[in-house]
Amino acid sequence: MKISVVRNVLEANERIARENKRLFDQKNLLVINLMSGPGAGKTSLLERTISALKEKVRIGVIEGDIQTSKDAERIALLGVPVVQINTDGACHLDGNMIRETLPHLDLDSLELLIVENVGNLVCPAEFNVGEDYKVMLLSVTEGEDKPEKYPLMFMESKVLLINKIDLLPYLDVAVSKIKEAAKRVNPDLTIYEISCKTDEGLTDWYNWIFEKVREKRYKGS
Amino acid sequence: MKISVVRNVLEANERIARENKRLFDQKNLLVINLMSGPGAGKTSLLERTISALKEKVRIGVIEGDIQTSKDAERIALLGVPVVQINTDGACHLDGNMIRETLPHLDLDSLELLIVENVGNLVCPAEFNVGEDYKVMLLSVTEGEDKPEKYPLMFMESKVLLINKIDLLPYLDVAVSKIKEAAKRVNPDLTIYEISCKTDEGLTDWYNWIFEKVREKRYKGS
Repeated sequence: MKISVVRNVLEANERIARENKRLFDQKNLLVINLMSGPGAGKTSLLERTISALKEKVRIGVIEGDIQTSKDAERIALLGVPVVQINTDGACHLDGNMIRETLPHLDLDSLELLIVENVGNLVCPAEFNVGEDYKVMLLSVTEGEDKPEKYPLMFMESKVLLINKIDLLPYLDVAVSKIKEAAKRVNPDLTIYEISCKTDEGLTDWYNWIFEKVREKRYKGS
Repeated sequence: MKISVVRNVLEANERIARENKRLFDQKNLLVINLMSGPGAGKTSLLERTISALKEKVRIGVIEGDIQTSKDAERIALLGVPVVQINTDGACHLDGNMIRETLPHLDLDSLELLIVENVGNLVCPAEFNVGEDYKVMLLSVTEGEDKPEKYPLMFMESKVLLINKIDLLPYLDVAVSKIKEAAKRVNPDLTIYEISCKTDEGLTDWYNWIFEKVREKRYKGS
């Protein structure tokens, strides 16, 4: 019985996510669903990315948190449109939550919408929201075994950003092992090693976004 | 409709958790439900704790992971009884999963059972498993804002272990701010600052366990 309930929830979500996707496609709007465990650095990555790209790409953000609007406040300081979703206990965003926020954003004025999911390495990967790509962040401090232990998010993601590499000298962690484990789970994963503190590796990530925004713009012309 | 489904699941779990608790109480067995986000160091803490206490306290472990038996293999090396639960996608342990593993443990031979939950800062806090205490771990690398953003686990826990303090010199994080935020959410929280790498702070944690094992033993005499 429990399984059938979950299936109904997932099916209903899929339907709404597809409707969102159709709307985003009509508007040639690239949508990224950004996921990670808590404290891996999603909001810091967003701050860096927006600062680097906002003159070239028109960016909007949806912030998902269980409580507080702290992340949205950080993003608003950068002068881009942002909407905060409070899930009120729920451990992930879903298609319906995204649909509810859309009236608060002027989608026609945007080229890129980044959805920052709730910090959770498990549940967000099960729920599409209508995104073009899922992108995940993993901090090197989380250890080498995460791709094997939490495979779904690695399987669902197009890009893995391995963050906080500035801390590697102080950890018993080898990035090569994280990458090998991630590639075993998802051989097609694009992987960038980054530090939002030192900016190392971020240019490749910016170029990836820029290319995808261009692709989506071109699709509609 | 979605809400009522969730409520039924939680109510059913509460019933089973209470049955588990009754069994543990009959056997004067102290049960700790150990929770954290992914990669905060639960298994490392368990290794340290078992090595330090196993001559004085008879310890058993239940390992919860979505996939793999890696954590159980690490614990088995220490020569204590351990059972691995694979949740097969589920983001937390529940009362029924624990009940199913109990035939695989000789409860009469144990004084302390530690349940290592799935690495997730959200969902595990919603599901009692029959424990005496919930204990949570937070790595300093996860940042200062976690108690405010993920309050339920901090509210439900008796002890907060702030781990990886050896990394503080390399982070823009103040432990005092984490502690203040945690105390705002749960003023009764007992907090220890620890490093499983340098062993700093662990003696206070061991003493806490030792005292609780003694209390539970005394209750039954």
